[in-house]
Amino acid sequence: MFYTIDILGTIAFAISGVLVAMEKKMDLFGILIIAFVTAVGGGTLRDLLIGDTPVSWMKDITYTYVIIASAIFAITFKSKINYLRTSLLLFDTIGIGLYTLIGIEKGINANLHPIICIALGTMTASFGGVIRDILCNEIPVIFRRETIYATTCILGGVVYFVLGQLPIDSNIVYIVSGFVIIVTRLLAVKFKFALPNIYNN
Amino acid sequence: MFYTIDILGTIAFAISGVLVAMEKKMDLFGILIIAFVTAVGGGTLRDLLIGDTPVSWMKDITYTYVIIASAIFAITFKSKINYLRTSLLLFDTIGIGLYTLIGIEKGINANLHPIICIALGTMTASFGGVIRDILCNEIPVIFRRETIYATTCILGGVVYFVLGQLPIDSNIVYIVSGFVIIVTRLLAVKFKFALPNIYNN
Amino acid sequence: MFYTIDILGTIAFAISGVLVAMEKKMDLFGILIIAFVTAVGGGTLRDLLIGDTPVSWMKDITYTYVIIASAIFAITFKSKINYLRTSLLLFDTIGIGLYTLIGIEKGINANLHPIICIALGTMTASFGGVIRDILCNEIPVIFRRETIYATTCILGGVVYFVLGQLPIDSNIVYIVSGFVIIVTRLLAVKFKFALPNIYNN
Repeated sequence: MFYTIDILGTIAFAISGVLVAMEKKMDLFGILIIAFVTAVGGGTLRDLLIGDTPVSWMKDITYTYVIIASAIFAITFKSKINYLRTSLLLFDTIGIGLYTLIGIEKGINANLHPIICIALGTMTASFGGVIRDILCNEIPVIFRRETIYATTCILGGVVYFVLGQLPIDSNIVYIVSGFVIIVTRLLAVKFKFALPNIYNN
Repeated sequence: MFYTIDILGTIAFAISGVLVAMEKKMDLFGILIIAFVTAVGGGTLRDLLIGDTPVSWMKDITYTYVIIASAIFAITFKSKINYLRTSLLLFDTIGIGLYTLIGIEKGINANLHPIICIALGTMTASFGGVIRDILCNEIPVIFRRETIYATTCILGGVVYFVLGQLPIDSNIVYIVSGFVIIVTRLLAVKFKFALPNIYNN
Repeated sequence: MFYTIDILGTIAFAISGVLVAMEKKMDLFGILIIAFVTAVGGGTLRDLLIGDTPVSWMKDITYTYVIIASAIFAITFKSKINYLRTSLLLFDTIGIGLYTLIGIEKGINANLHPIICIALGTMTASFGGVIRDILCNEIPVIFRRETIYATTCILGGVVYFVLGQLPIDSNIVYIVSGFVIIVTRLLAVKFKFALPNIYNN
């Protein structure tokens, strides 16, 4: 089941990459690279930082196929992709939830401090988009908009570690903290939650 | 012989870095870094992703000397470098051919899937330029221009694996696929081959 | 003592990150990431290139606490930070001196060529700022301004290796080369030393 979620998340991330790359009028090769980087960039950075190489997507060719297929799909049906908006937001959000937890677990396996594990989880979920924006010559969107995109990952990570202290089955810890990320993200999108504005104007 | 080609490619890549950096009016240190990154950036990313560290250029000081000498040469004779244009294009193209094959072989040695090996080869040949453009605050040129720069690397990689299935001497496989990259690139430059335009305007 | 210097350098680097991020009107999360990247980016790149993973800051949670505290401090007292300008320049400069030497020593331990070691030292001291500027969508400041920021690191590295050839106590070599970096940097800031201008206009 986790694998299915992982693939759905990969699809949503790849399609978001295609849309940004097409706005920048990139050519086919550029679009494909941006789709790739958006989908696997966060996990790649995580693997590099903890030294788990070759990085994940190189060891399972499925990701490559899924990303190429998603990119072709998105390019072909670009004008109709708006109809899929809700599905894509859902895939994206579920993907973020899962990726955060995968990153945290990789950190735990590498014996890292809980705060570093949460940072790894947040990175896994959000740095594909950061690298996408850098390649597209933009200030990364998650650094600019006062949304709580990354904050939901951090929150879910904290829940994961707090529940982990209690005598609760580890699968339940996993599912509950994943749901915290997914639900807070969807609520944040719906009600436009934002981080406190630190500028006067 | 491969080593000589490698050095010629390094020279061509370093000089291309100097020219871009000088257009951006960088200072001496900036120019040197951009020359370096253009020349070794692709191979560095490849080595990081497969976990072959310390990365190649750190283990052979020759690259550093060649890059510094090329940079000094290019800065000193900047106004005359146009005369070398054809030689530089040739060095650059031969370098791209070789780097693609080096990347593919490193992928094979790491037991990776052929598609991932081709991706590594393409990365080795083209990501120095990508990192150069990011440091110069530009959208990477190979993502924008509808040229087939990277496509020739992919094509050569496919030839490499297809021929590898046949009972052919491995040196011949190496040379033929290298030539495919070099010849298609030169033809592409001459006849301005382009990827299909996916935008209506 | 080295640890104290390291922490002071981390504080200065993190605060410089906060100031740049706030100029770009980033949100809280963005500011924190930029503070982080500025403080640990150079060392992280160094560790990745030589394959020393998990990278340093992941193995000692102190850096994370110091960076978060510095960021909160800088955001809260932004308007008053100008009063600390001299202290920050001093911390920053001492940090640069120490980071250069740490990078050189890591290179020596990995059996790398002295020139590569000096490159690693310079990278440790200066690439946090480079990554900060890329994330903020600027051409890195140390590539543009004709200051000798990075040159002082290289100079200190050369002194380190030259003195290392002589029959001198290694602690003295360490302290003298650190001082060379610190003093040349402070003199450079005061008297506006610059690299030779290679452009005619």
